[in-house]
Amino acid sequence: MNKIPVAILGATGLVGQRFITLLHNHLWFEIAELAASDNSVGKKYGDAAKWQLPFEIPESLAEMTVLPCDPERVQAPLVFSALPTDIAGELEVAFAKRGAIVSSNASPHRMDADVPLVIPEVNPEHLALAEIQKQKYASDGFIICNGNCTTIHLALGLAPLHKRFGLKKVIVTSMQALSGAGYPGVPSLDIIDNVVPYIGGEEEKVEIETVKFLGEYKNGVVAFAPIRVSAHCNRVATRDGHLETVSVEFADKPSAGDIIAAFDEFRGLPQELNLPLAPNRPTVYRREKDRPQVKLDRDVEKGMATIIGRLRECNVLDYKFVLLGHNTLRGAAGATVLNAELLYAQGLLNNVGQSVRQIVG
Amino acid sequence: MNKIPVAILGATGLVGQRFITLLHNHLWFEIAELAASDNSVGKKYGDAAKWQLPFEIPESLAEMTVLPCDPERVQAPLVFSALPTDIAGELEVAFAKRGAIVSSNASPHRMDADVPLVIPEVNPEHLALAEIQKQKYASDGFIICNGNCTTIHLALGLAPLHKRFGLKKVIVTSMQALSGAGYPGVPSLDIIDNVVPYIGGEEEKVEIETVKFLGEYKNGVVAFAPIRVSAHCNRVATRDGHLETVSVEFADKPSAGDIIAAFDEFRGLPQELNLPLAPNRPTVYRREKDRPQVKLDRDVEKGMATIIGRLRECNVLDYKFVLLGHNTLRGAAGATVLNAELLYAQGLLNNVGQSVRQIVG
Amino acid sequence: MNKIPVAILGATGLVGQRFITLLHNHLWFEIAELAASDNSVGKKYGDAAKWQLPFEIPESLAEMTVLPCDPERVQAPLVFSALPTDIAGELEVAFAKRGAIVSSNASPHRMDADVPLVIPEVNPEHLALAEIQKQKYASDGFIICNGNCTTIHLALGLAPLHKRFGLKKVIVTSMQALSGAGYPGVPSLDIIDNVVPYIGGEEEKVEIETVKFLGEYKNGVVAFAPIRVSAHCNRVATRDGHLETVSVEFADKPSAGDIIAAFDEFRGLPQELNLPLAPNRPTVYRREKDRPQVKLDRDVEKGMATIIGRLRECNVLDYKFVLLGHNTLRGAAGATVLNAELLYAQGLLNNVGQSVRQIVG
Amino acid sequence: MNKIPVAILGATGLVGQRFITLLHNHLWFEIAELAASDNSVGKKYGDAAKWQLPFEIPESLAEMTVLPCDPERVQAPLVFSALPTDIAGELEVAFAKRGAIVSSNASPHRMDADVPLVIPEVNPEHLALAEIQKQKYASDGFIICNGNCTTIHLALGLAPLHKRFGLKKVIVTSMQALSGAGYPGVPSLDIIDNVVPYIGGEEEKVEIETVKFLGEYKNGVVAFAPIRVSAHCNRVATRDGHLETVSVEFADKPSAGDIIAAFDEFRGLPQELNLPLAPNRPTVYRREKDRPQVKLDRDVEKGMATIIGRLRECNVLDYKFVLLGHNTLRGAAGATVLNAELLYAQGLLNNVGQSVRQIVG
Repeated sequence: MNKIPVAILGATGLVGQRFITLLHNHLWFEIAELAASDNSVGKKYGDAAKWQLPFEIPESLAEMTVLPCDPERVQAPLVFSALPTDIAGELEVAFAKRGAIVSSNASPHRMDADVPLVIPEVNPEHLALAEIQKQKYASDGFIICNGNCTTIHLALGLAPLHKRFGLKKVIVTSMQALSGAGYPGVPSLDIIDNVVPYIGGEEEKVEIETVKFLGEYKNGVVAFAPIRVSAHCNRVATRDGHLETVSVEFADKPSAGDIIAAFDEFRGLPQELNLPLAPNRPTVYRREKDRPQVKLDRDVEKGMATIIGRLRECNVLDYKFVLLGHNTLRGAAGATVLNAELLYAQGLLNNVGQSVRQIVG
Repeated sequence: MNKIPVAILGATGLVGQRFITLLHNHLWFEIAELAASDNSVGKKYGDAAKWQLPFEIPESLAEMTVLPCDPERVQAPLVFSALPTDIAGELEVAFAKRGAIVSSNASPHRMDADVPLVIPEVNPEHLALAEIQKQKYASDGFIICNGNCTTIHLALGLAPLHKRFGLKKVIVTSMQALSGAGYPGVPSLDIIDNVVPYIGGEEEKVEIETVKFLGEYKNGVVAFAPIRVSAHCNRVATRDGHLETVSVEFADKPSAGDIIAAFDEFRGLPQELNLPLAPNRPTVYRREKDRPQVKLDRDVEKGMATIIGRLRECNVLDYKFVLLGHNTLRGAAGATVLNAELLYAQGLLNNVGQSVRQIVG
Repeated sequence: MNKIPVAILGATGLVGQRFITLLHNHLWFEIAELAASDNSVGKKYGDAAKWQLPFEIPESLAEMTVLPCDPERVQAPLVFSALPTDIAGELEVAFAKRGAIVSSNASPHRMDADVPLVIPEVNPEHLALAEIQKQKYASDGFIICNGNCTTIHLALGLAPLHKRFGLKKVIVTSMQALSGAGYPGVPSLDIIDNVVPYIGGEEEKVEIETVKFLGEYKNGVVAFAPIRVSAHCNRVATRDGHLETVSVEFADKPSAGDIIAAFDEFRGLPQELNLPLAPNRPTVYRREKDRPQVKLDRDVEKGMATIIGRLRECNVLDYKFVLLGHNTLRGAAGATVLNAELLYAQGLLNNVGQSVRQIVG
Repeated sequence: MNKIPVAILGATGLVGQRFITLLHNHLWFEIAELAASDNSVGKKYGDAAKWQLPFEIPESLAEMTVLPCDPERVQAPLVFSALPTDIAGELEVAFAKRGAIVSSNASPHRMDADVPLVIPEVNPEHLALAEIQKQKYASDGFIICNGNCTTIHLALGLAPLHKRFGLKKVIVTSMQALSGAGYPGVPSLDIIDNVVPYIGGEEEKVEIETVKFLGEYKNGVVAFAPIRVSAHCNRVATRDGHLETVSVEFADKPSAGDIIAAFDEFRGLPQELNLPLAPNRPTVYRREKDRPQVKLDRDVEKGMATIIGRLRECNVLDYKFVLLGHNTLRGAAGATVLNAELLYAQGLLNNVGQSVRQIVG
């Protein structure tokens, strides 16, 4: 079987590097092009990227020449975007207009009314929004987004509860890892022996993206879920893995046993379709009194699951619990790739596949 | 003026060491005796204590011989207790029975109906409970407690709001420093590149002590404040300083300006009486968007204030903010000493003072 | 093929846990018994061990009942020892006397004249010492040791140089990871924002074990290598991976190119015999100006290699360089297992294998 | 007495901030001007500086308007330079030409033949080189430098030994704190759970500056000390305080007792002249087996001393020991200010003082 050639935009950054490792030797996709900012263009990828992961860059990719993030120069029909916020907005539209399908980790288009903001286990039906974009752009291209790294795990953890019991209120405090800020990101003097109780724009993203993820698609529109979400976001001195404490109120308060069963039993389309990157269990509930912990649990299910623990009654809302997820895997690059796998399995890359085979084959 | 001789129980631990530094050269008190566990008894303090603070032990104290924590052997009329939880309960009562006034940082008696759990700026009138103990023990002795390190700063931060506007609900998430677990405390492998979302017994203390602090004393009884408090407690890799994110709901929602004014203007008895360890401002509100931060703000007002910042509307309750305090100063040893200073300034150590002069003089 | 049943002594500690992961599903060995200290005996391993590794305990092992470290109760013919220093000395001899082959990570017997202290790539011929023990114990049993975690990587890094060019002097400064101290090990308050320039007994081990590793076996005796080694050992706040700066003087100074070639080309028996845990390259020389780095390189070759870099002239001795290795893999459990694999491949477990088959089969 | 007005160049950086705190309320100097890079010019200092120290900026300085680093705009006769390396070279000369005395922490002129590289306790006689500069620049101005942060503490620790016994060889390995790299400096992802065994240009500075510090001044020339120095420099995850392990060889090996006496008794001009910032003991020898430690000892003598410990025989050279010093106090800003205090006490600021009185008075 011919694989679909793909491009990575913003390939040299932390999320770009995760794309590389997730897409190298992928079952359905093949990295055909790497693109990055001007000071990397023309260099070999191995020289351009300050590689951060504890294993070597695949050699064939290290030798690839970095292209500019230009829709005229980057040809692949499927594009993974780890573009910086300030340029992603315009560039992703340009790619969609020239017919590319853009699976994006960037934030600018997440809240666009016609852009599906998708977690495949949670709201795959939002994909229908893509049709609106195709008409707007008069092309086969469109943008599909995953959410903010803190939001994805929150939404994935809340989804089993909201689907079964209906949520009304959520208060969340995050303790976020350093890789969430990219590289160079947080200066070491700002975080060793410190906690920074502020991350620009983060709380707003968590509050609004969550209700879009959990919202209902009908007739070309996503109606936000009627849940009030309040977020406190903090940076702590961990390398990877966002931990969140969560208090929730239900329309109709279920038993603790019912909640745990909801976490245990939650499955979605990725599990049904057996997507390559899908975790066996998207939500994993741990029974120990002191779990999940960042260093012990962030890599469970290869970093693609949300780990929950410590469910107990809350004196103010109904219940409280702890939730953890890997921020650059399921919280970023893994989410973007899983979204693309969903498109593939749903047949949304079919034509792409054909036009592609001509290019690659 | 003759100073009051005091003893420190549990003198070799982290809180004991803080007692040493706060009481050495104190205006009113003089360290007369140091007591600790069996394996320290008979040694010089300088040899018994594994000194943790970044300055030398005062030489005269380093030479003092460590006594057992035995009310027959420790003579001082005023006793500071940093005893471990498992032995503090019985021992502190034994000291009170032999006539000592026990200012305690230990937890066992905090919630006793006849024990004043006091923050001098918040509820000095609870001191009246001491009379009940004196009668029970048929002595001049009694126990006065400060709270848990996380609770003290929460209660100090909530007090200005509760006194002016009346609080109804509080959800708090703490990110607590390592020194809060004592020494050796948290193993390094458990916390580097990690967050532990569980501290045994901590959440219960925060939830119940807060409403005792903010409760009303009348006719020998403290009626708990009618506030619902829910706590999520976490350990992070900071050395000193507990950070807390707080969401609150009021009986009658005030304006943000009124809340900040309440923080700015809050003063209490320690400031009025000019107690030696009293901060000028017990609650300090910072206007920067990213403060308070642990390493930058924990030492403000010599570690005796609660620092607040980031007041903003909460989507679920009324407002949310961030709060920080030094856990071994105002959150432990500083609180215990300030309580004793309050006793002194209120004349509650008067007789003690006289009987004492005979011993020391 | 029947596998050889093995026991792990000290199975609950950090090194014991590494044994578990290295021996579970091993090609030649099968974990038959787990033994630990009294407070673990009788419990299921999953309950007795405070599991520290970022993946689950293999389920079959979690269910195993922990035995006492008693040669009468532990039956396996091949025993892996992660026993604490204070009891390893006597116990390991008792196991050898009852006929067990003890591959030990403990320190007491390392410098015994009749105990082979072995790195399979460096001095496999020292194994001949085992015969002396067999006679002494009048059994088929004997003890084989690997070295201290800092020493193993130093000796592995020096071996290619000593074998080709002859070393005379070595000055080494180590920056050692926290897992080297076991669990609970180093208290977090002792190491965050700190370096501790002292590790009890470590410098002596590095200085003496190195010259035994590099020594010459002849007629039942190991003559220590005539190299003067001086060590400065420090603890730093890393989780895994010991970094060492090394200055060396040769009998006859080679060129830098010759030294790098020696690192690049170094291979030994494990590579020749294709031992399951053998790295492809036991010494890996990196050309970057700022490598090896702890977090980036400790897992190279699955933690079984020594990574070297920054070779340059030294103003005082001949050359200097940097060296890194994983302290609980090749520096501890991995070394112990590789030693046992060497025994197996050399036929030294042959009889063991047969007697064993009766027990397990 | 009128104080001498001084300017700080590079006032917003980490070292600049230390200048502020050391010069605010100084006995002899008064901060008259603050200068920094273009993007700070014209702003209030409090807005321009990202303040890093755990106490507030003095209010009068927070209100000062930042000037450009231009010798025409900055008028003060005494100038403290924390300029970045790439612009310090030219700018400092320009200041000297217009008559300013420049006490510099920057590196470009340290090794200039006519620039005194001074530690006041070690080589105050090198100041005589200033006369050569005055003639060259045809002005009253000149440049005086302190050394690199690692070198200063090494040289201060070696000076008592070299002066008494004569040193021949030194091998040093440093474990350097993050503040040594300035702000933002080292990205947190590069250092948490890591050691970086490379700091650009650092080893060269340590090797060459040490022998200039310990060199002999005669007839307008400094003859480098005939000592071979070899340095291994590493970055570790500490905030402040450089730790160094040192092996030394003497011309004539003294006893350990003699060496310790040399550390204990070492005093110099700053102590004799009672300079405001002079430590009582420039070298402090600690007897404990595990000291000095970074967090416990870096602030001894207000960060102006070098702390030594663990003297023992070295198998390769004669002795080895551990050495620690605060890198931004005695290792940077404290050194620059102490140099200026030496100039003042030696009368080298006399004319400056007069011309100054006109400006300020």
